[in-house]
This record gives sequence, C-alpha cells and structure tokens, in this order.
Amino acid sequence: MSIIGLDAMGGDHAPVATVKGAIMALDFLDKDSRIVLFGDKEQIEAVLEQENCPAERFDIVHCSEVIHMGDHPVQSFQAKKDSSITVGFASLKSNKIDGFASAGSTGAMMVGCMYVVKQIEGVIRPTISVRVGTTDGNSMLLLDVGLNVDCKPDVLYQYGIIGNAYAKNVMGVETPRIALLNIGEEREKGNLVTKATYELMEHTEDFNFVGNIEAKSVLTGEVADVIVCDGFLGNSMLKQMEGFYEIAKSQGLSGGYIEALNYATVGGTAVLGINGNVLIGHGCSSELAIKNMILQTELTIKGNLVDNLREIFS
Amino acid sequence: MSIIGLDAMGGDHAPVATVKGAIMALDFLDKDSRIVLFGDKEQIEAVLEQENCPAERFDIVHCSEVIHMGDHPVQSFQAKKDSSITVGFASLKSNKIDGFASAGSTGAMMVGCMYVVKQIEGVIRPTISVRVGTTDGNSMLLLDVGLNVDCKPDVLYQYGIIGNAYAKNVMGVETPRIALLNIGEEREKGNLVTKATYELMEHTEDFNFVGNIEAKSVLTGEVADVIVCDGFLGNSMLKQMEGFYEIAKSQGLSGGYIEALNYATVGGTAVLGINGNVLIGHGCSSELAIKNMILQTELTIKGNLVDNLREIFS
Repeated sequence: MSIIGLDAMGGDHAPVATVKGAIMALDFLDKDSRIVLFGDKEQIEAVLEQENCPAERFDIVHCSEVIHMGDHPVQSFQAKKDSSITVGFASLKSNKIDGFASAGSTGAMMVGCMYVVKQIEGVIRPTISVRVGTTDGNSMLLLDVGLNVDCKPDVLYQYGIIGNAYAKNVMGVETPRIALLNIGEEREKGNLVTKATYELMEHTEDFNFVGNIEAKSVLTGEVADVIVCDGFLGNSMLKQMEGFYEIAKSQGLSGGYIEALNYATVGGTAVLGINGNVLIGHGCSSELAIKNMILQTELTIKGNLVDNLREIFS
Repeated sequence: MSIIGLDAMGGDHAPVATVKGAIMALDFLDKDSRIVLFGDKEQIEAVLEQENCPAERFDIVHCSEVIHMGDHPVQSFQAKKDSSITVGFASLKSNKIDGFASAGSTGAMMVGCMYVVKQIEGVIRPTISVRVGTTDGNSMLLLDVGLNVDCKPDVLYQYGIIGNAYAKNVMGVETPRIALLNIGEEREKGNLVTKATYELMEHTEDFNFVGNIEAKSVLTGEVADVIVCDGFLGNSMLKQMEGFYEIAKSQGLSGGYIEALNYATVGGTAVLGINGNVLIGHGCSSELAIKNMILQTELTIKGNLVDNLREIFS
C-alpha cells in the first residue's frame, strides 16, 4: 500500500495535465495504493468533473498558494507556507504520504529535499537520476543527471552504492552491473576525476563494478544496469537523448524503442540519498509524463529504498 | 590545387578500404587536386588493378612499414622510420603534401602532430574537432572531441578563436555563431569551468559569442555554427551520436538526415592549432568514411586555415 503525493499545481500545464495524469495512473497502480493531490481544491475538482472521474478516487489536500517557476526557490518555499510544494513536503516529512512527485519548480523541490526531508546521514551529496529503457528491453539508471556538476571521486563512488541499491530494490536486478561513464573502456582512459574514480571502484566489494562504459553503449543494456557520471555530463547525455527523440520524430520515426527516449516515458528524475521518496518532473510535463512519474514514485516507495540506503550508510 | 596525402595502410580495413575510398574521392575533388598514397606499393597497386583504376591517377610513396593499432605511439613513430604515418608527416613537414589524413593509430598521428608538425605558437593546446551536419541542412563544428579531457577556461576560449577561423575559412560562414556547450542557457549555469569560460567569452571581440547551448540543440543548427566544450564532454557527445545512429538503423530508420550521424559521413576529425592540415579517421573506417575524410582534408587545405591561425595567434 503506497500513498503517493502529487503536486497538482506543478508544471506548465497544471492542473489539467497533472490531474489527467493522475487519473491515467489509477489503472496501473496497485489496488491499495492511493494518490493524494496537493493544490487548489476547486480547480482540481473541476478537472475531475470534466473527466467524469469521481472525486473520491483521490484524496485532495487544499493548498491556497503556488510556487511559480520564476519565484526564488528558498524564499518562496518559506514564504508560501500554504503552497502545494511546501505542504507536500510537510506531509512527506510527517509520513502522511510515502512519496512526493512534482513537475513544478525544481529549485523549490530541491529546497524541500535538502531542508525538510534532508539527506541521509553518511551521504556526501544526494543525486538525481533517471531510469531509461534500453534497446534490449530492460532499463538502466543514469546518475547524476544534473544536481552535482562538479563531482569528486568519492561522491561518484557513493553514486555507485546508491545506484546499486536502486537497481536491486526498484529495478529488481539481482546483481546490478555498475559502470563508470568514460571516453574509453580501458582503465587508463578518462579525465582526472574518472581515472581517480576508477581506482576507487576497481576492487570494491560494495557493488559489482564492471568498468568503464562509453556513451555509445549507454542505451544498449549490454554493459551496465547503472551508469555513474558527474551531473554535468549526465545532464548533457539526457538532453542529447531529448534532442535525438525530436530528430527521430521529425524524420518520421516514432513508436517502438524510440519512445523510451521521450521525456514523457522517462516520467521524472528520482532524488536519491535523501530521507524520502521524491520525484521531479519536467516543467513541460504532459499527462503521460505525469502518469509515468506517479508510477515511478510508487515503484520507488515499494522498493523501500530509503530504509535500505539508511542501513547501508549507517 | 591541393595535394592530399593519405595513409593507405591506416585503419582496420586498409589498404582495401583506403584505396577504394581514394578512388571514390577522385570524382569529387577539384580537377587539379591530387592524392598521394603512402603505403605498400604492391598492395596499393593490387587494389587499384582490382578496381580497374589506372595507377597514374595517384602518386604512390612506397613505405615498407606499418604502425599497428597495438604499437606504442611514440616508440613506433620513431622506430618505424619507413612507416606510412612517419613518412607522411615528413612529407607534410617538408611541404611535399598540403595535408595528411589517416584512419590508423590515433596515438601515432598525434605524435606526428605534436613532434613533427608542432603546434602553432600561441596556441596553448591543439584540439580535435568534428563537423557534423545539422537538421537545418547546414553543419556545425564541435570541439574539442577528445584530445584535451581536462580543459582550463583559457583553453576553451582559444577553441572559440580556432573554431571561428575554421567556420569562416572552411565552412564559409561569414559571421560564425560560437556557443559554449552547457547544461542551461542562462549565464549562471554550468560547472566551475564553463562558468569561468562564459565570463571570458561574454564580452569578447575575438568572435561572435552567442552564449550557452544545451546538448539537445547541438544538431539543430538554430543556435550555433561552432560549439566549444572540453574533450571529455565532446567525445561523449560524439559517441552518443554514434550510438543513436545505431539505434535509428536498428529501428528501421536510415537515409535522410540520420546519415549525418553516421561516422562515415562525418569522415574524420580535423586536428586544429598545429602547423599543418591533419585529419584523423575512425579505426573502422569504411571506404565511404575514407572518401569523406579526403574531401574534408581538401576543404581544410583550401581554407588556408593554418596560415590564418598563425596570423591570429602571432
């Protein structure tokens, strides 16, 4: 039984896309899972009515304020005490919900992660990650994808540990293959940081390190289940995938594997290494993206990842 | 009139693919251009005969040795004095050829660049670059794509200057748009290096800096003609393009714009900032890749880029 909080006011197309996405998710969630919508009750109910969806299928927590994309993350998180994001994090902190997802202000979401939920003791730097389908029909986890743009080797090493736990608990991979994203497969390849990271990972017993992986193999699934890199490279990789998806579509290719590269299929980025299950979606999230973000949130909750990471780092 | 040297022994499929590629190139070169093949005369002539191509259409410089992929670059460059790469660089240095291209050992090619041809005075670090077609029908230059994996801001700034000269002289763009590859368009985005580089480029009069570009826009042509990044990111971008090309093909999409992402269309990477025109190809180069590498070499020669860069940095 998972109680999933959704920021109904978050994203460019909220609350229509968020509420519609939540309705879409209902058919895919476990029977005893429940979605809690945070936001303007009247607006939420209007969309539900328009979609002929009974309001009692959701819990609604009315919030009178919204943090907008242009707002200062820290200031607005504190000032707008009744905003959907601030109230959502308070609910997460007090265990009224098991996870919280939003396509709203990434900055405000990170404020909630770092100052309300807080990082797990022992974790140097939390990370944001994405799980993307691979051409062999499985999926891989890429981390970090933009939170830490200048990573030290010990931080990347921890991302191996965090990714390993995610792959086991959420992706259901028994012995995940952890690889370091690099510009060559040989151990001596790379920049200063990846070379030093390789040395740290090489003989580890914390996870199954399979060596370096090159960017061309990231999506094949052949080499790794978890791919570790700094947030500057990871974010660029992710954005290049977005670019490729657009190119493929413009060239008449859609459906099939190509949909795995659609941000809406990816659904959102999981914030890992904090004391709660938090998913952050693309600002432009469509209802499909919201649906997939909700499903990812449920999977993360069911994986009991937070408890597992706390134990590992204790 | 361009005299283009080609290492006929370089690459996994040499000399068959190299000689065939050279034959293919003949139809596209200027009438008075000439290809000089460096390598085993007997083997080269055997391929020419097999292809029904008169040997006199090429100049052949017989070389009795080959530097293999597994050879130590510096040692083999010096020890194998009659290898196609070593002889090719000697010819370039003494102006018997105007440019030299090889799909052989990248390490040995770089030894030739740095120790025989040498870098242009004032250039902190030479760079390798690729020119890739964009979806708007034009092309962009990405640099560095793997030579300098840890770039300081002043090096990246120089890549702006070098790329600007290339775009003007070789790509024929009157006022090239130079962008910095980054994880956001806003000036405050990025890691320590890109933030510092942005500050250096922001008010420059050395080139037309258009700001940051995100990886998703690299191939649209909408933002920039020249895209500057460190070799770690650039190499990863390039390899992700290769990976995406494979995915597109496997999904039944080929031809059209997608072919621009084929390494064989790209043809090779130009080494810039040295006292000569040098192109390095993929080890697995097909005849099509060799053909395109030869055409790129001719374009670089005709652009008179080396003289122009010498003047800029003097």
